[in-house]
Amino acid sequence: MNRHCGGILWLTGLSGAGKSTLARELERVLRARGWQAFVLDGDALRTGLNADLGFSPQDRAENIRRSGEVAGLFAQAGIIAICAFISPYRADRDRVRAAHAAAFHEIHVSAPLEVCEARDPKGLYRRARSGEIAQFTGISAPYEPPLAPELEIPSGRWPLERCVVQLARYTERRFALAVAA
Amino acid sequence: MNRHCGGILWLTGLSGAGKSTLARELERVLRARGWQAFVLDGDALRTGLNADLGFSPQDRAENIRRSGEVAGLFAQAGIIAICAFISPYRADRDRVRAAHAAAFHEIHVSAPLEVCEARDPKGLYRRARSGEIAQFTGISAPYEPPLAPELEIPSGRWPLERCVVQLARYTERRFALAVAA
Repeated sequence: MNRHCGGILWLTGLSGAGKSTLARELERVLRARGWQAFVLDGDALRTGLNADLGFSPQDRAENIRRSGEVAGLFAQAGIIAICAFISPYRADRDRVRAAHAAAFHEIHVSAPLEVCEARDPKGLYRRARSGEIAQFTGISAPYEPPLAPELEIPSGRWPLERCVVQLARYTERRFALAVAA
Repeated sequence: MNRHCGGILWLTGLSGAGKSTLARELERVLRARGWQAFVLDGDALRTGLNADLGFSPQDRAENIRRSGEVAGLFAQAGIIAICAFISPYRADRDRVRAAHAAAFHEIHVSAPLEVCEARDPKGLYRRARSGEIAQFTGISAPYEPPLAPELEIPSGRWPLERCVVQLARYTERRFALAVAA
């Protein structure tokens, strides 16, 4: 019915790398083409589905497990789930991949820590450096970059527009279905 | 973009009342009309998102909370989430309603216990009576029927076809959007 198949675009990267902005822009572009796309955002899910979870490694694992299951349901429904999650642990991301192998596309939204910290759009790095926020990825908790992501978007070097075009092009190539006229 | 708004059709009722069958049939009918609809089924979610939960009142509450959050995300995405969950506790259903008030439609798929037990499509009532399954709704755990559902479908008296037509008509009236030609 849709002219594309469902799937999971899993955007991982540091806080401030631009995952959410890129996700929203991609959603807008895909919808303008008549595609079914929906952003699942880590921050937003922590106010609902994952409101009971914190930032310990165990809670982060459960946060990513649940979010991956939801993304899998959207993919089953024929929708492109655009997932914006720091998801710092490789093992957590790999479990999502294993559970939804055919649908899963790992996109590394990569910007150096110095760039993210200099941007600091929400003032979180400042608060993490001062010790006000604990277990903050990149400062007081690890980030394990993907070893072999399906795509890397160097958001620290490219302007937003180029990032969006690149990701939209990737999405179209991987998810478009031929439709009889 | 779709010609309808998103929403939550929450089918509650005893095991064997026909919730899942009705949900699948409605999904088929709506898709045939070009609508975006997707079934969220309690049994299916217990193999994924809710695989860590059992059947105690606390676990049932969390099962329904998470499932309601997922349904809310589908509604936000513009999809009709057709939810088939026994969801025996009124308080659990009311929490989903409170969290997603504008989108939530409670549909009581009502069949008497005797009818459901006589059907016993999966042999669960027999196993519950023998004590092999504990905390089984209707036998060894309560079912609290809705006091004021948006719609009641008497699936114990009506043939499936009539149930489907009735629910599809309700859905169309509540969710259709006028579209400029």
